[in-house]
Amino acid sequence: MTAQTLHLTSHQRFQCLAITEQVRDFVRSQAGLDGAVVVSGQHTTTAVIINEMEERLLVDLEQWLEAIAPSAGPWKHNDLELRSNIPADEPRNAHAHLQALLLGNQVVVNVKNAELVLGTYQDVILVELDGPRPRQVSLQLIASSTCPKT
Amino acid sequence: MTAQTLHLTSHQRFQCLAITEQVRDFVRSQAGLDGAVVVSGQHTTTAVIINEMEERLLVDLEQWLEAIAPSAGPWKHNDLELRSNIPADEPRNAHAHLQALLLGNQVVVNVKNAELVLGTYQDVILVELDGPRPRQVSLQLIASSTCPKT
Amino acid sequence: MTAQTLHLTSHQRFQCLAITEQVRDFVRSQAGLDGAVVVSGQHTTTAVIINEMEERLLVDLEQWLEAIAPSAGPWKHNDLELRSNIPADEPRNAHAHLQALLLGNQVVVNVKNAELVLGTYQDVILVELDGPRPRQVSLQLIASSTCPKT
Repeated sequence: MTAQTLHLTSHQRFQCLAITEQVRDFVRSQAGLDGAVVVSGQHTTTAVIINEMEERLLVDLEQWLEAIAPSAGPWKHNDLELRSNIPADEPRNAHAHLQALLLGNQVVVNVKNAELVLGTYQDVILVELDGPRPRQVSLQLIASSTCPKT
Repeated sequence: MTAQTLHLTSHQRFQCLAITEQVRDFVRSQAGLDGAVVVSGQHTTTAVIINEMEERLLVDLEQWLEAIAPSAGPWKHNDLELRSNIPADEPRNAHAHLQALLLGNQVVVNVKNAELVLGTYQDVILVELDGPRPRQVSLQLIASSTCPKT
Repeated sequence: MTAQTLHLTSHQRFQCLAITEQVRDFVRSQAGLDGAVVVSGQHTTTAVIINEMEERLLVDLEQWLEAIAPSAGPWKHNDLELRSNIPADEPRNAHAHLQALLLGNQVVVNVKNAELVLGTYQDVILVELDGPRPRQVSLQLIASSTCPKT
């Protein structure tokens, strides 16, 4: 299998979930692989980042994002009565879309001999920006040019 | 063909152009492909993002970017008389460079059986930050490890 | 060889190091390759971006990042006395983590016939956000679907 979907559940409005181990396990199942793995959030109010899982830094991150794109900002996307065809449970989450765009929602991690090529302090992190919710992350292996020449 | 260049034209200074269908058509032309497609803007004042094409959200995005990196900010890049070798029609567009760096200028979309792996509300979007202009986006298919073992 | 590690040294706290030529040389060593190259910083306080190496723009970038995530901000990550197991030389660099997350720490550059697919003004740039330091950047080639059908 060269693809896998991670199913995760966030429990807070803002939450950082380390998924490095799940990505590593997936990659290790491909003995000898050289290439990369694409880790891609399947939502518009999540982010996928690589950084340090230091708990005080993650608080800084939450507060910084709230300052840059406040949840109570004057966002037109949140005027639900002016939009058409929206579900009854549509959230007011413009800030989460904007924060997701700032952080990005995918990373590519290089793979050498079935191991992730990451620095000491680097973790792969799913950032929940509009939780709590069930969330999905798509993993896809990508191969280097190792085909035999014909 | 494993590569293609999209040629698009923006008609406003800021504009979001959905290119999901063009990327999808390209991927579908590769029957059975598993892997990913790289979607990469070929300019320094565009962005390529994945998010929701909700019209009021796109207005929020424009206003948010203008607040974070204002077009009339005190940018040194805009002092054209202090730079050398610039064309006669060089624009004052430092804000557009900075906004492009905030959003990012490429995405990788996973592909399963020649279909894009995207969530319900996810569109691939070229964001024009210094239009109107003709623009190019490079598409490149990338294969998973499906070579026969020798 | 489908992978390489670039070793670089920054000499300033904030510094933009163009690495386009190193990436290009690496790609050219793979005669005829179609696909992409992943360029990935191995640290949590660097960024890897594609944009223009215009010197005044780079000053704008530095000042803009300092305004958005100030080095002297009230970051919890910088209260070293409240964290456990930190090295004696741990820097106060929360701003650099946040700036790195804003810019992103990797790019994928498409490759056609062993040449980088980049626009006129696009350079691949390692952005040092907490220098001076030695730094590493991981390069990984990724192939398009060129395997012979069996």
